Amino acid sequence: MASIFTKIVNGDIPSYKVAETEDYYAFLDINPIVKGHTLVIPKKEVDYIFDVDDTLIAGMMVFAKKIAKAVGAAISCKRVGVAVLGLEVPHAHIHLVPLNSEKDIEFSRPKLTLPPEEMEKILDKIKSKL
Amino acid sequence: MASIFTKIVNGDIPSYKVAETEDYYAFLDINPIVKGHTLVIPKKEVDYIFDVDDTLIAGMMVFAKKIAKAVGAAISCKRVGVAVLGLEVPHAHIHLVPLNSEKDIEFSRPKLTLPPEEMEKILDKIKSKL
Repeated sequence: MASIFTKIVNGDIPSYKVAETEDYYAFLDINPIVKGHTLVIPKKEVDYIFDVDDTLIAGMMVFAKKIAKAVGAAISCKRVGVAVLGLEVPHAHIHLVPLNSEKDIEFSRPKLTLPPEEMEKILDKIKSKL
Repeated sequence: MASIFTKIVNGDIPSYKVAETEDYYAFLDINPIVKGHTLVIPKKEVDYIFDVDDTLIAGMMVFAKKIAKAVGAAISCKRVGVAVLGLEVPHAHIHLVPLNSEKDIEFSRPKLTLPPEEMEKILDKIKSKL
């Protein structure tokens, strides 16, 4: 069965899409741990990030860099942090998280639920920096 | 002034070295948040990971994958997680952290201080899986 992220890539589930290429897709985390929290995935469905083949994982990091630069320019933060946990959705994904402190990237934080208008506003701001 | 990690690469500060190539260096975190916590750095001193040039950041992820596979084979865990925070040492580094739960990759956890013999044992185990 297609992962929830494959459904997002295919447009079967809506997403706040930041950018896509032939191989990769970036979109806002629907339950962000901080504002601007963005996910980067390969379109190819691979569960564990370190099972992604060398060419694809290399390109994924270059794509993530481009997205992270835009996130960092759009959202007030010291750095854009990176996390890959892989314990939940079985489709490799890189979390890009605007950081002001190390606690901003702790996944036990209560997730935010932002109104659609605010998600759209964040999305537009990030996209304007691409 | 050379970063602490450049000093490690140059051998001016000792490290539990897992592996190195012409461009990258991997070593055990001296204050791990869990056993097997390993750092991957580019030898070139760049502060922010997303300022590492495309070729180098792409290769860094491929190198990190190789190291992560060895860490995951050596240390009992569900996954090897990835984190980049970049708020402390001004030399880009990827944390590879054996995960059994998402809390294993929270940097506010108390750091472990393991005796040298145990660090050596962990190091040997990881290196044997490379």
